[in-house]
Amino acid sequence: MSTAKVVFLPSGRRGEFPIGTPLLQAAQKLGVDIDSICGGRGLCGRCQIICAEGSFPKHGITSSLEHLNAFTATEERYNQERKPMAAGRRLSCHTYLQGDVVIDVPPDSQVHKQLVRKAAEQRDIVLNPSVTLHYVEVTEADMHDPKGDLQRLLDALEFEWQLTGLSYEFNLLANLQTALRQGQWAVTAAVYQNKQILAVWPGLRETVYGVAIDVGSTTVAAHLCDLSTGAVLGSSSLMNPQIRFGEDLMSRVSYVMMHPEGAAALTQAIHDGLNTVLGQLCQDQAIQREEILELVLVGNPIMHHIFLGINPIELGGAPFALATDESVKIKASEMGLQIHPAGRVYVLPCIAGHVGADAAGVVLAEEPQLQEEVTLLVDVGTNAEIVLGNRDQLFACSSPTGPAFEGAQISHGQRAAPGAIERVRIDPLTKQARFRVIGSELWSDQAGFAEAVAGLGVNGICGSGIIEVIAEMYLAAVISTDGVIDGRLAEQYPELIIPNGRTWSYVVYRDSAGQMITVTQNDVRQIQLAKAALYAGVRLLMDKMQVQQVERIRLAGAFGSHIDVKHAMVLGLIPDCPLDKVSSAGNAAGTGARIALLNQEARGVIETVVRQITKIETAVEPKFQEYFVEAMAFPHKTDPFPHLFAVVEKPTQSGAIVDDSSQRRRRRRV
Amino acid sequence: MSTAKVVFLPSGRRGEFPIGTPLLQAAQKLGVDIDSICGGRGLCGRCQIICAEGSFPKHGITSSLEHLNAFTATEERYNQERKPMAAGRRLSCHTYLQGDVVIDVPPDSQVHKQLVRKAAEQRDIVLNPSVTLHYVEVTEADMHDPKGDLQRLLDALEFEWQLTGLSYEFNLLANLQTALRQGQWAVTAAVYQNKQILAVWPGLRETVYGVAIDVGSTTVAAHLCDLSTGAVLGSSSLMNPQIRFGEDLMSRVSYVMMHPEGAAALTQAIHDGLNTVLGQLCQDQAIQREEILELVLVGNPIMHHIFLGINPIELGGAPFALATDESVKIKASEMGLQIHPAGRVYVLPCIAGHVGADAAGVVLAEEPQLQEEVTLLVDVGTNAEIVLGNRDQLFACSSPTGPAFEGAQISHGQRAAPGAIERVRIDPLTKQARFRVIGSELWSDQAGFAEAVAGLGVNGICGSGIIEVIAEMYLAAVISTDGVIDGRLAEQYPELIIPNGRTWSYVVYRDSAGQMITVTQNDVRQIQLAKAALYAGVRLLMDKMQVQQVERIRLAGAFGSHIDVKHAMVLGLIPDCPLDKVSSAGNAAGTGARIALLNQEARGVIETVVRQITKIETAVEPKFQEYFVEAMAFPHKTDPFPHLFAVVEKPTQSGAIVDDSSQRRRRRRV
Repeated sequence: MSTAKVVFLPSGRRGEFPIGTPLLQAAQKLGVDIDSICGGRGLCGRCQIICAEGSFPKHGITSSLEHLNAFTATEERYNQERKPMAAGRRLSCHTYLQGDVVIDVPPDSQVHKQLVRKAAEQRDIVLNPSVTLHYVEVTEADMHDPKGDLQRLLDALEFEWQLTGLSYEFNLLANLQTALRQGQWAVTAAVYQNKQILAVWPGLRETVYGVAIDVGSTTVAAHLCDLSTGAVLGSSSLMNPQIRFGEDLMSRVSYVMMHPEGAAALTQAIHDGLNTVLGQLCQDQAIQREEILELVLVGNPIMHHIFLGINPIELGGAPFALATDESVKIKASEMGLQIHPAGRVYVLPCIAGHVGADAAGVVLAEEPQLQEEVTLLVDVGTNAEIVLGNRDQLFACSSPTGPAFEGAQISHGQRAAPGAIERVRIDPLTKQARFRVIGSELWSDQAGFAEAVAGLGVNGICGSGIIEVIAEMYLAAVISTDGVIDGRLAEQYPELIIPNGRTWSYVVYRDSAGQMITVTQNDVRQIQLAKAALYAGVRLLMDKMQVQQVERIRLAGAFGSHIDVKHAMVLGLIPDCPLDKVSSAGNAAGTGARIALLNQEARGVIETVVRQITKIETAVEPKFQEYFVEAMAFPHKTDPFPHLFAVVEKPTQSGAIVDDSSQRRRRRRV
Repeated sequence: MSTAKVVFLPSGRRGEFPIGTPLLQAAQKLGVDIDSICGGRGLCGRCQIICAEGSFPKHGITSSLEHLNAFTATEERYNQERKPMAAGRRLSCHTYLQGDVVIDVPPDSQVHKQLVRKAAEQRDIVLNPSVTLHYVEVTEADMHDPKGDLQRLLDALEFEWQLTGLSYEFNLLANLQTALRQGQWAVTAAVYQNKQILAVWPGLRETVYGVAIDVGSTTVAAHLCDLSTGAVLGSSSLMNPQIRFGEDLMSRVSYVMMHPEGAAALTQAIHDGLNTVLGQLCQDQAIQREEILELVLVGNPIMHHIFLGINPIELGGAPFALATDESVKIKASEMGLQIHPAGRVYVLPCIAGHVGADAAGVVLAEEPQLQEEVTLLVDVGTNAEIVLGNRDQLFACSSPTGPAFEGAQISHGQRAAPGAIERVRIDPLTKQARFRVIGSELWSDQAGFAEAVAGLGVNGICGSGIIEVIAEMYLAAVISTDGVIDGRLAEQYPELIIPNGRTWSYVVYRDSAGQMITVTQNDVRQIQLAKAALYAGVRLLMDKMQVQQVERIRLAGAFGSHIDVKHAMVLGLIPDCPLDKVSSAGNAAGTGARIALLNQEARGVIETVVRQITKIETAVEPKFQEYFVEAMAFPHKTDPFPHLFAVVEKPTQSGAIVDDSSQRRRRRRV
């Protein structure tokens, strides 16, 4: 018998090869997904396999360890000098076919391994990084065959790895000759998208890193990933240092409008911030910056423009023109980002002037284009970025919610921090609020609450607390459908409903010294304006899609993770939908960045999807204003919210209250 | 009649078009080479034509001005606001076909115009720059059609100029939105090789610049060219600032060997020098650095590596491995060169470890690959770079001539500068020398010589003077065929042949104070070693090509321009050849750089030719040493030099002289 059969699992690929064929070679010929950096030299240990023993009638094979060669000296050396293989494992590059076998390729030996994602995420990520490592032995320089060292390297990469027509990053030339000689003509090349050599290192290198970064207006969050395993090794974040130029986006754009030279300062600030966070990641994981070869960035359009060095001024006024609506691929060094000098940056595309690369990240993570159900994705920030659709079509817009949902412009609003009220319930009979603050699990009416919060204080109300308290005020009939605090209740509840100029306020908490945390009429108005803007945007997209109902809602971002779905729907912040179909998508923008980092094909996917999304500009939609006005009511002036009121009791309104603070102006967009 | 015929001259392309067709459009449809930056808007004036009047029986056309529309308002405006057109000229974009015409496209309206080269050069350059300008009117940003400004620009370039799939330089994004708005949505884009947008400017821009640079070990020479006319607007040069690290190449490589960190300093020095010379060019021509969009560089392998930031140490010893033997294309900003931030650099390929991109420039300028005659190209520096061949095959090598030809290591040698002896004649009877110095036209035996050189002095002998004096010493039988100064002549000519230790020296000049300029026995030896190395290299290539005779010799570089061909051949510095077939190629390396700058196709040509050249490494050729020894004699020990001695009388040797200074060692190569 001069040939033998081999079946590789889990792929099931099979073939017949001459006796003595290395299993790695057989696998590669069959297109089996099996990893190797060292090219079959028994150095990297990536190509480990397990021989399945026994009879496999389905394949017509009786597989046996006897059908493979004995453990080789190379494998012994690997076990001793590197990391001992688990029992039963072999290096497929040094295991030779002697008879029929069934071979299992464990997940860690696969290139395109599945990475299991967290609960809030949609599906697994298939590892397919754009930077791959290739160990080669290069022919030594020889006067009898004069040739450039680069050309020798290219020949080796073509011969050993079938990588043809590679270009290279300029700085490679400066390091190549040293690396070849240090490595005694054996080097590992990092190749970008099978097209371009980014770097070479002497000898065998097994790992390079990438970082997925979400540049938020407030926080910059970065996740360091091992590009050969896909593992997130560490995360780090910092306050966006642009905050010194303005708390929110609009104030930063205003700063640039007033100080034209300020655009460069904003860009420098975020670049410095990114370098800081990259430095933290490196320090935490004890790696060098030069080991990071790729960054993937997302951010809203203004952050996107600023970190690319583009003055964001055009995004501050109509027609809100993006400099580019496509993905951007650049060298990190061109942006002054301190990773490997040839390191690359991939920036996801913005969808429209107000719908940024962060929304594209959410789409990539959530994949609405694959859903059957009509899916609503909402990412709430200073603008809410809204995507609606399913596998047939997708629509996107943004709505100027303003910063109220983040606790700004709310009299006792504050950032989510210890001591902030985050959960509220109001008794419909007593109108009394009970609440929880961040940092304690106790409700305010539970024993020990005072002691528990003694060190925290009760300092204000954070974004999710605002949603709850106003929803509860509505459910307890403290405010009307139109959002007016019912001053007539002051007679019966003078401690809770107190006058505030020409309007009334509701007292959530009063400490022993008489200091109060209240919700004013203006606070309610701010939330109404914000939620009406969001709802009107959603309604517009539903119109465009010609649907009356969304079937599934995913709330992205920190806001989405913290708010209570029911309360959000009571307010009419999101449209009616079965409550069990509304969930948090976690940090979907950041997840999208991580997917694009770990799987290069995902970049093509999001670029295509973004092109196919129908962009709606709310500012030029005649119906937006009408939808906005209708959405001011709780939960809505006309929409019935059947799913909501199937599980929540509709409050009994105590009669018409005059609304004397018509704040239905449209705010300036940012 | 609804159509009319048009013939364009000089191409002779003809067609029939509907009455009213603009001539520019007709020309473009016929593929006539006619320029336009503004895309037919009557702004740039590039598309001017002349209507030839009269009967053209060959074309069957009677052409008349009557067959064109009257002068248009646009043309009037062009004449008034821009530059009045010469009589009879029209803007072809605003001249419409009304009947049969013959149209002349003058050279200045052609894109691919022929640029007439200087006498020393081979042939004209066809203008075909890699950077072209394209004026476009871009659709304004519109909320009803949300799209990135970049995409709008790309659409316009595709629609108006059929430029598809363009990429762009990153920094474009930072400037694009401002340029579009400043230009009221009309901008001019600079496009690199029809593939990549490098820059945009508001409104119409008609010119960008490029610089061809020859980085010599001693001198950096740069030529500023207008990329739309091909004209050399100015040239500037400076001493290579690396000189502070070592006068010649070998001492700079030694410096790096002893100071590993010195490589970066050498790179920085040449970058600084290049920035200085670029600054001089800009200042002289009153242009901005940002108007320069491309640099083309040549240099010997060591200069090539150093300016690319590659440590040249590998070129300092066997096997003399180049980091790359291909052309290098990079961004100027990556090298820290201060031109437009997106400006490009093209570096010609090195041919081999000792045969540099300067030699490639010589090949590009001289085109030996197109010659029928067996052509020898010699560029003399510290190493002589030698190319031999014709349209059938090409060979290249370098030979370690050392710095003797440049006047170094010669006792009274000096750089070519005022007061240096550059021409010498020796009377065979009196053995007396007469000479000329740089800075005066008078021979030393002419009346007024003393006065003429009073301010200059007679300071030493420059490279070409050394060649002449030694050749004349041989012709006057002062030295033997073996290069020994005949001490027996001292008796008869005690003022001219003087003892110098165990050998003799020849007195070229003795001033009134008795100060002498002499040629020592060692000087003769140095020249013998240098010329023997050169000749041996040539001989080796002749062997490889299997020819006994070269048919044509071109001497490149400053050395080649100054030496007297006959004297060079008397020394046996070059092989025998009809004297009228030996000429100077001028600064052929610099010309090659200019050709590559002005004609992008020339880059492909030289890349292909360089690949096809057979590289000979003299160090591993067993016959080199034998050829070297044979070539020590004047003009050669065995080769007969029939062409030379047909016009020069062979000196009568006065008998054998013992050579007591066997300096036939091989010098260290650099």
